Amino acid sequence: MSSSAIDMNRNVVVMAKQYDKTLITIHNRVLLDVLRELEIPLRSDCGGIGVCGKCKVLITGGNSTQPTSSERKLLSYKELSEGYRLACQVRLIEGEFEVSVPPESTLQRYKSADTGFERPVPLLPAIKKIFVTLPRASLNDTRADFERIVDTVKDFINSNDIDIDIDDIRKIPETIRNSDWKVTIVAWYDKRIIDVEAGDTRDSAYGLAIDIGTSKIVVHLIDLTNGSTIAIDSTPNPQASYGADIISRLTYALKDDENLRRLQEVVIKAVNVVIDRILSRANVLKDRVYEAVVVGNTVMHHLFLGIQPKYLGYSPYVPTIARALSIRAKDLGISIHRSGTIYVLPVIAGYVGSDALADALAIDIENCEAPCMLIDIGTNSEILLNSGKEIIACSTPAGPAFEGFGTAFGTRAVSGAIDQVFIYFDSSIQDFVVRYHTIGGEKPVGLCGSAFIDATAHLYRLNIINNRGRFLKGIKSKRIVEINNTPSFILAWSNETKIGKDISIDAKDINEILLAKAAIAAGIRILAKSANIDLTDIKKIYIAGSFGTYMNVENAVTIGLLPSIDTKKVEFVGNIAIGGAKMCLKNTEIRRKAEELARRIKYIELSTYPSFNKIFMESILLPQITSRNQESSLQNGG
Amino acid sequence: MSSSAIDMNRNVVVMAKQYDKTLITIHNRVLLDVLRELEIPLRSDCGGIGVCGKCKVLITGGNSTQPTSSERKLLSYKELSEGYRLACQVRLIEGEFEVSVPPESTLQRYKSADTGFERPVPLLPAIKKIFVTLPRASLNDTRADFERIVDTVKDFINSNDIDIDIDDIRKIPETIRNSDWKVTIVAWYDKRIIDVEAGDTRDSAYGLAIDIGTSKIVVHLIDLTNGSTIAIDSTPNPQASYGADIISRLTYALKDDENLRRLQEVVIKAVNVVIDRILSRANVLKDRVYEAVVVGNTVMHHLFLGIQPKYLGYSPYVPTIARALSIRAKDLGISIHRSGTIYVLPVIAGYVGSDALADALAIDIENCEAPCMLIDIGTNSEILLNSGKEIIACSTPAGPAFEGFGTAFGTRAVSGAIDQVFIYFDSSIQDFVVRYHTIGGEKPVGLCGSAFIDATAHLYRLNIINNRGRFLKGIKSKRIVEINNTPSFILAWSNETKIGKDISIDAKDINEILLAKAAIAAGIRILAKSANIDLTDIKKIYIAGSFGTYMNVENAVTIGLLPSIDTKKVEFVGNIAIGGAKMCLKNTEIRRKAEELARRIKYIELSTYPSFNKIFMESILLPQITSRNQESSLQNGG
Repeated sequence: MSSSAIDMNRNVVVMAKQYDKTLITIHNRVLLDVLRELEIPLRSDCGGIGVCGKCKVLITGGNSTQPTSSERKLLSYKELSEGYRLACQVRLIEGEFEVSVPPESTLQRYKSADTGFERPVPLLPAIKKIFVTLPRASLNDTRADFERIVDTVKDFINSNDIDIDIDDIRKIPETIRNSDWKVTIVAWYDKRIIDVEAGDTRDSAYGLAIDIGTSKIVVHLIDLTNGSTIAIDSTPNPQASYGADIISRLTYALKDDENLRRLQEVVIKAVNVVIDRILSRANVLKDRVYEAVVVGNTVMHHLFLGIQPKYLGYSPYVPTIARALSIRAKDLGISIHRSGTIYVLPVIAGYVGSDALADALAIDIENCEAPCMLIDIGTNSEILLNSGKEIIACSTPAGPAFEGFGTAFGTRAVSGAIDQVFIYFDSSIQDFVVRYHTIGGEKPVGLCGSAFIDATAHLYRLNIINNRGRFLKGIKSKRIVEINNTPSFILAWSNETKIGKDISIDAKDINEILLAKAAIAAGIRILAKSANIDLTDIKKIYIAGSFGTYMNVENAVTIGLLPSIDTKKVEFVGNIAIGGAKMCLKNTEIRRKAEELARRIKYIELSTYPSFNKIFMESILLPQITSRNQESSLQNGG
Repeated sequence: MSSSAIDMNRNVVVMAKQYDKTLITIHNRVLLDVLRELEIPLRSDCGGIGVCGKCKVLITGGNSTQPTSSERKLLSYKELSEGYRLACQVRLIEGEFEVSVPPESTLQRYKSADTGFERPVPLLPAIKKIFVTLPRASLNDTRADFERIVDTVKDFINSNDIDIDIDDIRKIPETIRNSDWKVTIVAWYDKRIIDVEAGDTRDSAYGLAIDIGTSKIVVHLIDLTNGSTIAIDSTPNPQASYGADIISRLTYALKDDENLRRLQEVVIKAVNVVIDRILSRANVLKDRVYEAVVVGNTVMHHLFLGIQPKYLGYSPYVPTIARALSIRAKDLGISIHRSGTIYVLPVIAGYVGSDALADALAIDIENCEAPCMLIDIGTNSEILLNSGKEIIACSTPAGPAFEGFGTAFGTRAVSGAIDQVFIYFDSSIQDFVVRYHTIGGEKPVGLCGSAFIDATAHLYRLNIINNRGRFLKGIKSKRIVEINNTPSFILAWSNETKIGKDISIDAKDINEILLAKAAIAAGIRILAKSANIDLTDIKKIYIAGSFGTYMNVENAVTIGLLPSIDTKKVEFVGNIAIGGAKMCLKNTEIRRKAEELARRIKYIELSTYPSFNKIFMESILLPQITSRNQESSLQNGG
């Protein structure tokens, strides 16, 4: 290392071996800032003001500033004596620091919603490549070219009924003769020879995992020779021009089949654009991409396949086809190898798609410590529960509130959206202080779903709203105002925002949030009742989907979105649908298991559940503050 | 019956119960003419002049003329006493006659080469139709449409891995809802649902058998509900414009892939024209035709599939693919049901096609009394032998002589072509007399293959040519002349012919015929040697193909085309390739057996057989006249 730019006397070294990262930086910086620069996924719920105590880390080596009063209050004596500190309170003076982040401080958030938790799986792809030197044809061996190939690979492929597309037969004679009878046979399972390539091409085999989301299409390129992910890319789903959500797209499609055709066309085209881009970036030929595994919600699934989603729009909301499909890429117009296959995972129900199945697969819901639950939060939220005896699923229409619609300052998780909010009472100014975080660190432009959850939870804990979400009267604060005759709480002053006006949350917004959370909470309760389990017995809740990655668990528990369980039992797993798709791409045994799982999962139609209305109404209420939640509020006030 | 037009006193009744035919006709007619009018397949080798004795029939009832001297010579005393007569010698005087034709007098000839011997098979088609009333979708039963269907038919279809084409999924929701949930499921094997039809359509299911011959495309329409043949149609193979025989087409195709594409295009188009015509004639919708089974020689097979036949043209003459193929009709552009299947039977070798396999299947070569042999005579002749231990096959290039090319007056089996010749010495005029038969009874235009065989055999028996086919010197006859310095025998005088000149056979023609028959004879001998059997042990020889239907067995034996065996052991089976195709269409178990048979048949490449040249040279010679043949000649002289 050249020392020209680095003055070791004025610099410190920060190592986070856990993440395989090191930074040499100037001294006297706050550790939290250094760790942010290193992109260490560290929690910082209050935004680094020393009041939440979530940025707890273990530091060894080097000299740093002494523990502050915040740290003495928020960390135990034992923790302090072991070297735990709050990253927001420590300044690094000199030397080399080794920092490790305990699980409770780890932010279960991914840099991009394009990736998520991935369960490693052994490599057993549908594609086999076998290099052979064929015996030459002669008057003493007049077998047909194809039979010669099949005979030669019979030790590798169970070839009794192996098939080949007529298009692929045609080029075989020239290929084998031009390559001196040395060829690589590409087979899809033991079912079909999809190509005969000149020479030895065994080191070149790729596949794609594709998640067709309502708003975003995510594509991962996987090297099938070693299972590694080569490249990731995404593009907005261009169907958005025909409706932002699935219901509006469905409505557009059912008007006539020409509309349906157009929706299919644009999504196929967009998928092809991403594929072309990712392949060109990774320098991979499309003829070497033999398979793609596709997941999506049921409406996206139908539109991708050109199936009229009309009947998903009317009760009883049944899909046209649920089971897994292996479709020739050419039949769908997907630009991979001309005889490649598009494997479409099964859907579970009209509103529990193959994305939810892929989620379940990614977390291995069948083998989780039961009871365990998986929740994918969105406009439509899917909930799956493994009770230990059965796996049941439901879908609940949470509405668009969590996605930023239907609220005064709601926005999608765009740059500048406030995604975290922390409110506390500052006795020195005798008013509430708001700390917030924006996506990309931009000036605020609005509030995304997680901010609404945070704000509602804090307003409730601070007794600004009651358990019906109504603003209590007589609280003195510059932040509490009436806007359009609606009580509102200002989260960001106009001078702080990019939009030049105050950003606030009002009673109507809170009502929307309560309805949305009630839909999910009711789904969770009904699943538990159906399976005869107690919510407090739940060992684990997995939160999937990009929305979940921004959500604060304690706050979600406080507002009753999640049941009142130990927050350590809640795990954010990110966009695991693509992870599940990748597992199916890499391992056909898992693909088979996914198909079994889809058949095994019992779908519960909430609207037919006898006490649904009662449970839903109850779920609208904010739950009683528990001692633990109360404690958190008391700390804020301290 | 009205008697107005029929005077029973002046009429006779002729019944041929065997053929379920009756004719009321004027009295005093020759029985042979009556039987010809009834289209009874009765032999008449000499053309009805009372010298061959082949039109022997049993007559009961009525009054007829007394036996002639011909009959007394050609029929035994026992036969005469039992009521056997020569149909050409009997005149019907009065009353009702019952005529039956003994097997040895039966002409194994079919009215058209579009049909042939058919082995009845139990009905077990690949297509299943199941009528069901689906349980209606409801909030308590939210299964997807396709899963609902599959669940409902699970007692009829093993549905674990059943598939459906993406195109076929799309129309399902409307069909089931518009038909009050009463639908007919159309499945191809247990593998794929190819349609869901409104209401009960079980009584409507069709299939096609298609024989793509080098010169003719034959199509049979089969009702798959009862196995019956509804309609038969054919069209010339339009590829003929690109070359009359397979070698010239192959040469055209290998020049470039555009030529190949054109050859495929014209044959597909022609097949579609015949299909459209046959369906419109039978009033069958193409959406109810779910499968077609295709046979053809290996070059036709490759061209039909758009596979470059180039390597069939060069040693070692290997096909590109030999095994059976099930191809979507839409992938080949064949106009049956859009998701129908084209099942292409396997080929055996470069010059033993799926037509030969279908022949073997039709006669059940595996279970024939062994040793048995199957010969399909053509420009390229295929020979199959079941030795009892193994089934072996070879292909032998007989050349175009049998198809009318390469000879002075050769012609295809067109109207006016002489197809039978009978020559005898008439002592009263001290010269040879020629009787011949023309196709359609027209004035002669030329000679087709069977006539060359007949003529050569008679010239040899009458000692006009020697065993090398050379004309003997010093025979006095107006018919023996030199034309272009080549000895010739005039078969039809110019005043009898349509072409206004003498039609003759010359020494060069005879040489061509000897080379052609030597190719076949050598193939037969080598197969027998390979299998270690003696030709005299052969229990049965089946002659397949349209050429065979015109051939006179005794004459074929006389010239050594067929081995010297009892002619009763030779059976003409007509165009059985289409019969084999139909068996495969009607019964999938037979289809499976055909695939096994194709793998089981051992192909012998004649050119690599050690003593091929020696055996071929020996086979050119005309064999020694046996006593039986000699007797036939003596009779002629009588």
